[in-house]
Amino acid sequence: MRPNTVKQAWHQDKMTYGGWLSIPSSFSAEVMAHQGFDWLCIDMQHGVIDYQVAVTMLQAIGTTETIPFVRVPWNEPGIIGKMLDAGAYGIIVPLVNSKEEAEAAVRASRYAPDGSRSYGPTRAAYYGGSGYASQANEEIACIPMIETTTALENLDDILSVPGIDAVYVGPADLSLTMGLPPRMDHDDERFESARTTIASKCRERGVTPGIHASAALASKHEVAGYRMITVSSDVGAMAGAASEHLQSLRDVDASGRPAYS
Amino acid sequence: MRPNTVKQAWHQDKMTYGGWLSIPSSFSAEVMAHQGFDWLCIDMQHGVIDYQVAVTMLQAIGTTETIPFVRVPWNEPGIIGKMLDAGAYGIIVPLVNSKEEAEAAVRASRYAPDGSRSYGPTRAAYYGGSGYASQANEEIACIPMIETTTALENLDDILSVPGIDAVYVGPADLSLTMGLPPRMDHDDERFESARTTIASKCRERGVTPGIHASAALASKHEVAGYRMITVSSDVGAMAGAASEHLQSLRDVDASGRPAYS
Amino acid sequence: MRPNTVKQAWHQDKMTYGGWLSIPSSFSAEVMAHQGFDWLCIDMQHGVIDYQVAVTMLQAIGTTETIPFVRVPWNEPGIIGKMLDAGAYGIIVPLVNSKEEAEAAVRASRYAPDGSRSYGPTRAAYYGGSGYASQANEEIACIPMIETTTALENLDDILSVPGIDAVYVGPADLSLTMGLPPRMDHDDERFESARTTIASKCRERGVTPGIHASAALASKHEVAGYRMITVSSDVGAMAGAASEHLQSLRDVDASGRPAYS
Amino acid sequence: MRPNTVKQAWHQDKMTYGGWLSIPSSFSAEVMAHQGFDWLCIDMQHGVIDYQVAVTMLQAIGTTETIPFVRVPWNEPGIIGKMLDAGAYGIIVPLVNSKEEAEAAVRASRYAPDGSRSYGPTRAAYYGGSGYASQANEEIACIPMIETTTALENLDDILSVPGIDAVYVGPADLSLTMGLPPRMDHDDERFESARTTIASKCRERGVTPGIHASAALASKHEVAGYRMITVSSDVGAMAGAASEHLQSLRDVDASGRPAYS
Amino acid sequence: MRPNTVKQAWHQDKMTYGGWLSIPSSFSAEVMAHQGFDWLCIDMQHGVIDYQVAVTMLQAIGTTETIPFVRVPWNEPGIIGKMLDAGAYGIIVPLVNSKEEAEAAVRASRYAPDGSRSYGPTRAAYYGGSGYASQANEEIACIPMIETTTALENLDDILSVPGIDAVYVGPADLSLTMGLPPRMDHDDERFESARTTIASKCRERGVTPGIHASAALASKHEVAGYRMITVSSDVGAMAGAASEHLQSLRDVDASGRPAYS
Amino acid sequence: MRPNTVKQAWHQDKMTYGGWLSIPSSFSAEVMAHQGFDWLCIDMQHGVIDYQVAVTMLQAIGTTETIPFVRVPWNEPGIIGKMLDAGAYGIIVPLVNSKEEAEAAVRASRYAPDGSRSYGPTRAAYYGGSGYASQANEEIACIPMIETTTALENLDDILSVPGIDAVYVGPADLSLTMGLPPRMDHDDERFESARTTIASKCRERGVTPGIHASAALASKHEVAGYRMITVSSDVGAMAGAASEHLQSLRDVDASGRPAYS
Repeated sequence: MRPNTVKQAWHQDKMTYGGWLSIPSSFSAEVMAHQGFDWLCIDMQHGVIDYQVAVTMLQAIGTTETIPFVRVPWNEPGIIGKMLDAGAYGIIVPLVNSKEEAEAAVRASRYAPDGSRSYGPTRAAYYGGSGYASQANEEIACIPMIETTTALENLDDILSVPGIDAVYVGPADLSLTMGLPPRMDHDDERFESARTTIASKCRERGVTPGIHASAALASKHEVAGYRMITVSSDVGAMAGAASEHLQSLRDVDASGRPAYS
Repeated sequence: MRPNTVKQAWHQDKMTYGGWLSIPSSFSAEVMAHQGFDWLCIDMQHGVIDYQVAVTMLQAIGTTETIPFVRVPWNEPGIIGKMLDAGAYGIIVPLVNSKEEAEAAVRASRYAPDGSRSYGPTRAAYYGGSGYASQANEEIACIPMIETTTALENLDDILSVPGIDAVYVGPADLSLTMGLPPRMDHDDERFESARTTIASKCRERGVTPGIHASAALASKHEVAGYRMITVSSDVGAMAGAASEHLQSLRDVDASGRPAYS
Repeated sequence: MRPNTVKQAWHQDKMTYGGWLSIPSSFSAEVMAHQGFDWLCIDMQHGVIDYQVAVTMLQAIGTTETIPFVRVPWNEPGIIGKMLDAGAYGIIVPLVNSKEEAEAAVRASRYAPDGSRSYGPTRAAYYGGSGYASQANEEIACIPMIETTTALENLDDILSVPGIDAVYVGPADLSLTMGLPPRMDHDDERFESARTTIASKCRERGVTPGIHASAALASKHEVAGYRMITVSSDVGAMAGAASEHLQSLRDVDASGRPAYS
Repeated sequence: MRPNTVKQAWHQDKMTYGGWLSIPSSFSAEVMAHQGFDWLCIDMQHGVIDYQVAVTMLQAIGTTETIPFVRVPWNEPGIIGKMLDAGAYGIIVPLVNSKEEAEAAVRASRYAPDGSRSYGPTRAAYYGGSGYASQANEEIACIPMIETTTALENLDDILSVPGIDAVYVGPADLSLTMGLPPRMDHDDERFESARTTIASKCRERGVTPGIHASAALASKHEVAGYRMITVSSDVGAMAGAASEHLQSLRDVDASGRPAYS
Repeated sequence: MRPNTVKQAWHQDKMTYGGWLSIPSSFSAEVMAHQGFDWLCIDMQHGVIDYQVAVTMLQAIGTTETIPFVRVPWNEPGIIGKMLDAGAYGIIVPLVNSKEEAEAAVRASRYAPDGSRSYGPTRAAYYGGSGYASQANEEIACIPMIETTTALENLDDILSVPGIDAVYVGPADLSLTMGLPPRMDHDDERFESARTTIASKCRERGVTPGIHASAALASKHEVAGYRMITVSSDVGAMAGAASEHLQSLRDVDASGRPAYS
Repeated sequence: MRPNTVKQAWHQDKMTYGGWLSIPSSFSAEVMAHQGFDWLCIDMQHGVIDYQVAVTMLQAIGTTETIPFVRVPWNEPGIIGKMLDAGAYGIIVPLVNSKEEAEAAVRASRYAPDGSRSYGPTRAAYYGGSGYASQANEEIACIPMIETTTALENLDDILSVPGIDAVYVGPADLSLTMGLPPRMDHDDERFESARTTIASKCRERGVTPGIHASAALASKHEVAGYRMITVSSDVGAMAGAASEHLQSLRDVDASGRPAYS
């Protein structure tokens, strides 16, 4: 079976940088896959992406060495199974707030006896290659999100669940449940404490800490111990750069550049 | 009928900046439409875009004030008609090398008696609003591309064809026909002469000169008289910024940043 | 943030007429959006519509002032979140039969602290505009359906749940649970009593009563106090009128009209 | 091979009523196919419809006895072949203005030795059934459009081309080339003369005259000898009826109907 | 209402052979529907198929007499309702392990008073024809899957639930829960015992036993009493035959066939 | 630039076996790409495949080493350019009957100075990799079809056109123009003579002869000198094997196999 190079890196405490995909297109996914990210996450929760186009995005990523993750819209075994069968090598599960919810996420991601994933890796067996049935439980990453104050309270319980490879911090939702505006970062003590505590506790348990971030925040998170960091996104990169391109010219025009002469 | 604000700007010798769309997605188109470009061009020639998704992109652009242009794959009346009926307010026609080809482009873009466009603005009548049938010939821009040495030789003939609102220079193809590598710009005298000559001749004829470019090249083209300049693109912006985000971090890592401590 | 003009009307006890969309097409949605309805509902429960095409329909409606609602297939937070992130300004939730189910619908529709909607309005922030994060809880309508005898029994409890803006009566399902054939209206006392009781109780609570209906039934419902009434649908209008067009001619032919002479 | 019941009717000088499809959806096509039209035409010229969705529309029509026609975007053999291979039983070809163009339309529609259609009825052989290869030239209708004054001048030449089963009058384009606004009908002598002349000349030649019309105009055309008449359309029926439903209520409201009491 | 010929066969203890669809295409579905299977199952669990394309597959199957079944991704009422409304005549529900889960499957499949399916057979009413509302509960098959050792333990309870027409054995998942590799068949006593026990118990209860299998295994299952047997699949047939075609030639080449002479 | 391993094989007079794709699905394409064919051809002429899905099929093939070819619907530069930009490594052009038509096919496939392909390899540059601009003219195969008696007459002229890498014989169309039924093979002297003559003349000219065939016919064609042979297809393999699976059982049933005991 094709190895999950991201999990290999995690086992060696190496950093993995990821890109985030919200545009429903196999072409933009393929372009992003050529930028050299360790992994790309197809966001089916907040991204504008549903199953059928996600499959073509997985195929597009499959033309490169980048490892494909999927964030499912909800902690629901039907869609977790569908995305694994489509070839996802990691499942990010939103809003895991308790041990029970973490167990459900693991159960949906693993074949018996480790879980109750139903067998039928229709595309995954082509992508993963021979050995998929016996090795998938090892290679595929199960990644619950920690993004509420409730999850923080239950963090030890959640991390105690066998089969969790990493957790992924959702700073915006975490902010909201702390009464803060939904942003990626804050100068807030509780927020900062949560950010570092999650990383530390994960590392103690042998679980890789991950976080939704940006290139600007990556170094700070790396120092805190995070090894799965989102550093760019298709929409963010596109909108940011396109806006910059245009505004740089509008500013010049506004400053009175002489026209055609 | 909804006015073509880009044509209005051209009539006043005002600059119009455009964005280029190659990703087949109504969502990325909508995001680009919110960046403030004067016009966006859906590229059906080299973009990864066919009719059905282009319609949804036109709809997405239609949620904003940005004017939608379409580059058709070929100077063929069937697809020109389809895109106009779908609501395009300007048609960029590739590889117009002669007066006859320019006349064909105009003919396909205008209702009788100015041309032979077939009547049936099925979506365009909703987008354009009342008066479409009588005003479309005025509002819609017909924009042949000048992108070969043959076209340069026939430039006066081409510009003499009534109904041409602008021409759009394709620097990459122009390069190839000059024996140069396909790039957006060159330090080559013939290329430079072509670039400035096209702008001048257009301005003499009352035709707006346009050119495929980037933010970095825009000022230079503006000085030369161009008033329709492509300054960004969905794929270029996305790939460029995503790569920058990632590489900035890889460079830091390579320089020996201390890890988790 | 773009105001929800339908909620504004409700606050002033003004009538709002809606259209129903079951055809999976951004084009038919755009045509319907140009007919002047106060709101249109994309029906993802019984309509032939799934997420990806629903997004393009939301975009198409977004070219007009009509407010877009979505009926989700089930009271499930994953799809409620996805449709809100895609720009829906109201969510109609089927088969809400208890206070708990009503609370779940509200929770899925509101950010903390009013609920637990996850943050990531990827398209909604473009459609809604600036202020979305702080004002969405106010602007977006949460609309449980009352469509079973169980729901009738629990009506007071359901209406007591904070955050419910309107309820939407489903007459066909209500009929079935009363042992009646699934129709929009009945000369049945229990049915009639339910219809008027729901409206009255809603009005007492400051909740807007809504109902699935037709143009023919609208006045009757208006008199009963309903202020959110579906009066037409894409499929119904199309099939009804097309059939009429054809049958009018078949009838004439059958009556012996002389042919070509 | 499944018989073309529309051609059978034409051979007996029987009327055939058709519906027009511009919405890109297999579901709306299926609904229209259940209304009882003799034929439905998928409009790929002015309809919002391209190849891939047209195939699903042909399949949807194929669940009924209604005969599927397709109007191609242009008199181009590639798309004519594709639509025939997809199962169209008649091809309406726009803007046939000369004998040469009529011959090209026939050539693209018939296998050798009657034409040069390429062999490969990939879906058509399933829809048409056994005998397709040998009988398709007989069963499939080739229907050029007569919609310009030039075509009128060349009408005898066009009608002399073997293999034309019917012609289809496009009143809007015909209007434009006569200097009239693009409408379905006119109180104009030249227009009226064209309308009746085409029918007469067709009938003399054994070619069925057809015309783009509405239920209201059908009787008038039938008297003139037309036997292929479009009497409704998906968009027209939907928009017309939905608007009526809504406006009937708005009018009542405007007239001061008392509200909730 | 169109009769469910598969249920009719089951009532007469007649064999029904089915085909399995995992390719998301209405065209491959139509081709499979022309091969003469009694039923075809659109697999939305492990197949690469989501709602929107499944609808077009149902339409494609609807061009033939083959009865369309759907396997939903999960025992979830939202998707069961959507597929029934789209015209499925049987719903295969994965991983039904208890009486409660079986009851939930039935409830989602039947209108009141037999269940709580919501009314709105938007496409189904066209496919099924008149009488759908009153006869659907009778005609449509509810088919839970038995595919775990837990389900085996609860088999009597599950089979006691009114409204179950058949059960469908999933041999691969059953294998996994028995600690066997996920295969269609095994020389294992427990597995064999389960296979025959399920069939016997079903037959005692008047429930039709079904099983996921292949042409090679069909006779063995028939002898055991199974009357709903999957004997081929789109992907399996395609990949198997294409590989055979190619390998037969590669083998010849490898054996030293003389080349061009 | 990624090398075209098929052209490399041809230069060494090695056999290349291909598969044919007519199902519009990236998943079936990916499955076929895993069977080990040297090349796969996406058939946009007679296959049920248009541009947008073809792109996803090219991506799916791009997950393997198999080389992707495309048959375009017509010898038209717009679509040839689009498919090359999407990453096709060979273009099969139907119905090339003359030197002029062969020259047009080459012109559309090559950048200046060898042709007039427009520059913009939007996806191809990712698939092909660095060097695409300068090496594409060498790596990409231009493959006109020889499939009429006219083409046979003009064969020497056609083969004399520089830039033709291979020709592809279309036996069905060739049959029709010879007055034979459209089949893959015939016991007909003229047909047989054409088959061998084309191979010989090609080999004299250094052009690789190719032919549409089946596994059963491959050896015969190989002996005649063909080195590009289609030996299987998605639809043919699927329909053939599925039918066999089913019929084998129906035959057994018909022969009186005892049922359940």
